[in-house]
Amino acid sequence: MSLRSSFARLLRKQADAGLQLPKPAHSVALKRRGVDHGPAALRAAGLVERLAGLGCQVYDFGDLNFTQVPNDELYNNLVLYPRSVGLASQVVADAVSRAVAAGHSCVTIGGDHSLALGSVSGHAQQCPHLGVIWVDAHADINTPLTTQSGNLHGQPVSFLLRELQDKVPQLPGFSWLKPCLSATDIVYIGLRDVDPAEYYILKNYDIQYFSMREIDRLGIQKVMERTFEQLMGRRQRPIHLSFDIDAFDPSLAPATGTPVLGGLTYREGMYITEEIHNTGMLSAVDMVEVNPLLGASQEEVNATASLAVDVIAACFGQTREGAHIAFDELPTPSSPDESDREEQVRI
Amino acid sequence: MSLRSSFARLLRKQADAGLQLPKPAHSVALKRRGVDHGPAALRAAGLVERLAGLGCQVYDFGDLNFTQVPNDELYNNLVLYPRSVGLASQVVADAVSRAVAAGHSCVTIGGDHSLALGSVSGHAQQCPHLGVIWVDAHADINTPLTTQSGNLHGQPVSFLLRELQDKVPQLPGFSWLKPCLSATDIVYIGLRDVDPAEYYILKNYDIQYFSMREIDRLGIQKVMERTFEQLMGRRQRPIHLSFDIDAFDPSLAPATGTPVLGGLTYREGMYITEEIHNTGMLSAVDMVEVNPLLGASQEEVNATASLAVDVIAACFGQTREGAHIAFDELPTPSSPDESDREEQVRI
Amino acid sequence: MSLRSSFARLLRKQADAGLQLPKPAHSVALKRRGVDHGPAALRAAGLVERLAGLGCQVYDFGDLNFTQVPNDELYNNLVLYPRSVGLASQVVADAVSRAVAAGHSCVTIGGDHSLALGSVSGHAQQCPHLGVIWVDAHADINTPLTTQSGNLHGQPVSFLLRELQDKVPQLPGFSWLKPCLSATDIVYIGLRDVDPAEYYILKNYDIQYFSMREIDRLGIQKVMERTFEQLMGRRQRPIHLSFDIDAFDPSLAPATGTPVLGGLTYREGMYITEEIHNTGMLSAVDMVEVNPLLGASQEEVNATASLAVDVIAACFGQTREGAHIAFDELPTPSSPDESDREEQVRI
Repeated sequence: MSLRSSFARLLRKQADAGLQLPKPAHSVALKRRGVDHGPAALRAAGLVERLAGLGCQVYDFGDLNFTQVPNDELYNNLVLYPRSVGLASQVVADAVSRAVAAGHSCVTIGGDHSLALGSVSGHAQQCPHLGVIWVDAHADINTPLTTQSGNLHGQPVSFLLRELQDKVPQLPGFSWLKPCLSATDIVYIGLRDVDPAEYYILKNYDIQYFSMREIDRLGIQKVMERTFEQLMGRRQRPIHLSFDIDAFDPSLAPATGTPVLGGLTYREGMYITEEIHNTGMLSAVDMVEVNPLLGASQEEVNATASLAVDVIAACFGQTREGAHIAFDELPTPSSPDESDREEQVRI
Repeated sequence: MSLRSSFARLLRKQADAGLQLPKPAHSVALKRRGVDHGPAALRAAGLVERLAGLGCQVYDFGDLNFTQVPNDELYNNLVLYPRSVGLASQVVADAVSRAVAAGHSCVTIGGDHSLALGSVSGHAQQCPHLGVIWVDAHADINTPLTTQSGNLHGQPVSFLLRELQDKVPQLPGFSWLKPCLSATDIVYIGLRDVDPAEYYILKNYDIQYFSMREIDRLGIQKVMERTFEQLMGRRQRPIHLSFDIDAFDPSLAPATGTPVLGGLTYREGMYITEEIHNTGMLSAVDMVEVNPLLGASQEEVNATASLAVDVIAACFGQTREGAHIAFDELPTPSSPDESDREEQVRI
Repeated sequence: MSLRSSFARLLRKQADAGLQLPKPAHSVALKRRGVDHGPAALRAAGLVERLAGLGCQVYDFGDLNFTQVPNDELYNNLVLYPRSVGLASQVVADAVSRAVAAGHSCVTIGGDHSLALGSVSGHAQQCPHLGVIWVDAHADINTPLTTQSGNLHGQPVSFLLRELQDKVPQLPGFSWLKPCLSATDIVYIGLRDVDPAEYYILKNYDIQYFSMREIDRLGIQKVMERTFEQLMGRRQRPIHLSFDIDAFDPSLAPATGTPVLGGLTYREGMYITEEIHNTGMLSAVDMVEVNPLLGASQEEVNATASLAVDVIAACFGQTREGAHIAFDELPTPSSPDESDREEQVRI
C-alpha cells in the first residue's frame, strides 16, 4: 500500500479593499492527500493562479503528512487499511476544522473519496448544520458489511450518516469519528453506478439523489433547484461540495479510477458549480479521484486536471458570462476626431 | 453477396423463485443473422452474461441458417436480392413467432434492418395488436419504387404498413408477408437523414415521428411521454422495439454502415430503453447494424458492441440508479463495539 | 501581416419553377476573405454543391481583392492594422450592399470576425431595420480602448452600435463606417469567454445575450423563442446571422483560433439555424473563423469545414426531417401482382 502522503492547504481572503471584488469576501483552504499525483496535477494545471486571478488571496498550507499504520490488517477479512485511513482522516478533519474556524473557505484535494470522511467531519465540527452536495458517479454509501471491494473510498457516506450507525461496525482507527449528517442533509448528483445495497439504503433512508436518469428527465436547472430546496428550503446553511471527478463523462475525465459511461457534460458541471457559488453559502469543497497515472496520455491527464481546476474556479466565482471581475467605467476617447491622422492614409 | 447466415436465440425466464427478482418474470429470445459479425461482437461484449446478471435465464437457440436463393435477380433493375431477403425474413418470422408463443421475450440481433421484416411479422403473428418503437437515424420506409439505393434494409417499414400496400409492389420472395401494422402503430425516434419520399410518407400517412429536431425541442422526457401516449394512450399493448445502433451519434457508435452526425447521446439511449422497460410491456427487441468490419479500430468496434449490449440490458431492467437487483436487508454488525480491537492499534 | 485577399460571392435564386421548391424563392450571395484558407476549405467541403442540391441557383462572384495599406501603424500603440481592416471592410460592405440590393441572400465567408464590420454595414445600407443574431463564444464587443489584444476581430460590435459611439474613437480607415445598430437590434448566443469590459457593456447597455449558462438553464428551444421575441416581437425584419464557428464545442470545431470548452453541440447548432431559416426572414449570413492551419490533422480541418457547411445548408433549408426537397406523389406499382415471377423462385 502506498498511503496518501501529501497535503496542501490554500486560504484566500478578500485580497484588498481597493480591488473592489464583485462578490463578498471568500476564503479558501486547499488540502490534498494521496500518493496519487492528483494534487500535483491540479497545481500544474494552474489552480492557485486561477483562484488568485479571481481576486482571491490564497493561503497554501502545503501537504499534509500521513502516517501509515504498521500491521494494518484487513477488517472482517475484507476492508482495506482501516487504521491508516482512519488516522489520515482524523488529520484531515483537524486541518479542515482549523481552516474553517479561521474563517476560510476550504478546498481539500485528493486522493480518493475516503478523504470526505475527514473533510466533512472537520467541516461539521465548526458548522454542525452544514448540508452536503455529493457529485459523483457512485453513491459511496456501502457499509463495511455490504462492500464487495473492501475499499473505504466506496463507503465514506455510511460513516457520516446518523441513521445508519446501527448498521456500521466500529472500525479500528475510527473511534474518533462521529456521524455528523442526517439523511436529509445530503443530496447526490450524477449517480449511475449504484450497488444494490446502496440503492436499498438510498430508498429506505429517504436520501435525495439525482441519478443521470433524473438529470435526463428533469434537466440540470431543475435538479439544482430541487437540490437547494432540499438543503436550504427552510433556512440558509453552509454548503459542503464533495466532487468526484468521475461524475463527468469519461470522455472529459479519463484519468480516474472508476470511469462510468454517460456522465455529466462539461456544461452541466459548470452549471452545478456556478449555481452553488451563487448561493453564497459554499463553505468547503473536496475535489477527488483525479489520478494522473490512469490517463492513457499526457493529454488525457491534462484534460482531467484542467477540468478539476475549472470546477474549483467556478465554485469561487468564475463565470461564463464574464461577471467575475469588476469593471467600473468604459474609457472615453480623449480626441474623438482623429480625421487628421486618417487623411494621411494613402490608399 | 454474402448472405446473412447466422442466428442466435436466447430465452430467459425468472431464474429462480429464491432469487426474488425485483421485477416481474421476463423471458428473452435472442436471435441473430448477418454475415456481418455484429452478433459475434455482441456476444464477445458479454450480452448473455449481462442478461444473466440481471437475474434472467437465457435460452440461446444459436444461429439461424439462411439459404441464399440462386439467380436472385434484381427487382425492377434496382432492388437487391429480393428472394434471398424474403426467404430469410420468413425464417426469422417463424422463429420469433415460436419464441413469443412460448412466452418468451425475444431479442433478435442482426445484421441489417431488413431483419425487422421478419421479427415484426413473427411477433405480430402472436401479438396482432403490438406497437412498434423504431429508434433509428433513418426512416427505412422507402418503397421498392422510391428507393434510390435498392437496399431492402432501407424499405422494411413500407412492407409492414397496411396503408401503404397499394404503393408497394409484390416482390418475388415476399408473398408470405402480410402487412401487420397501421400507421398509428409505429413511432420513430432519432430520425435525421430522411429521403424526400420518406418525408412525404411520414407526413401524408400521419406517422408519428420524433426527429433529432423534436428531441432538441422537447427533450427526451417529453418525447417518451408522447411516444407512450401515441402507442398506449387508449390501452396497454405489447411493444416491439426495433433499435438501429446508428440512432446514436457516430462518436458513440462508429462501427456501423450509415452513420449520421448529431445523433442520440448515450444518456438519451439509456433513457429511452429504461422508459420502455418501465412500461412492463416490452415483448421483443431488434438490435441491428452493428458492423465490426466498419470500425476504424478494435476500440471503435468494442465501443459500438458494448453500447448495443447496454441498450439491451436496459431493455431488460438494468438501471442507472441500481434498482435492478433486489436487496432485502442491511446486515447489522454482530459486535457493534470493537473498541477492544482498536485499542491494540499502535500509531 | 498577410492581409485577407480573397472574396467569393454566390447568389442563388429559385432554380426553376418546374422544381416546385417547398419554400419561397431565396437568393444567396457568398463572399469570402482571409489569408486563412477557410473559404477554400468550405468549398472543398462542398458548400456550393450543397446549396445547389437544395434547389438553389448559386452565383459565385469569386474572391474579393483587398489592398494592404502600407505603413499601417498601430492605433493607440495597440490596435492592429486599422487602415487595412477599415479599407477591406469598406470593400466587403460595398459588395454585400450590392448583392442585397439585387435581391439576393448573401453569404460572406471569412476570415476573421472583423468581416462583420463590412457585412453588417453593407447589409444595413439596404435593410436599415435588420436584426443581428451573433452566434459566438466571444462577444467581440471590446472598444479600441478596452481591448487587451489589439485585434479588431475582438471589437467589431462596438463599432456597429449607436449607443457606444461616444466610447469608440475614430480609427484611421474607419471614417466611412456609420454605426447601424441599436443595442436592442442584436442578440448573442453561445457566449462563454467574455472580458470584464465586455460584460460591463452587455449589462449597462441592456444587450440581450444567451451565454452557455442560459442555454443550459433554458434549453435551446426557449433561447430561440426569446431571440425571435426580442428581434421580431413587434414586427418582422430581415435577419443577419453572424456565425463564428468557435460557438461550437472545440471537439466539433477544432480548427479555429480561440476555442473555448463547453460550446454548442452539433444538434444545438442545427436547431439554431433551422429555426432562423423557418422565420423566412434570413437575409444574410457570415461564417467566420474556420482556420485550416490550426487543425491538428486533416481530419480536424475537414470536420470543422464540414460543420460550417452544415450550418449554412441549414440556413437555406436543409432539414433533419427530410422536408427540404419537394416530393409530389408516391409511384404506384404498374403490376401489383407479381406472383407469377415469384412462383419461379426455387427454394
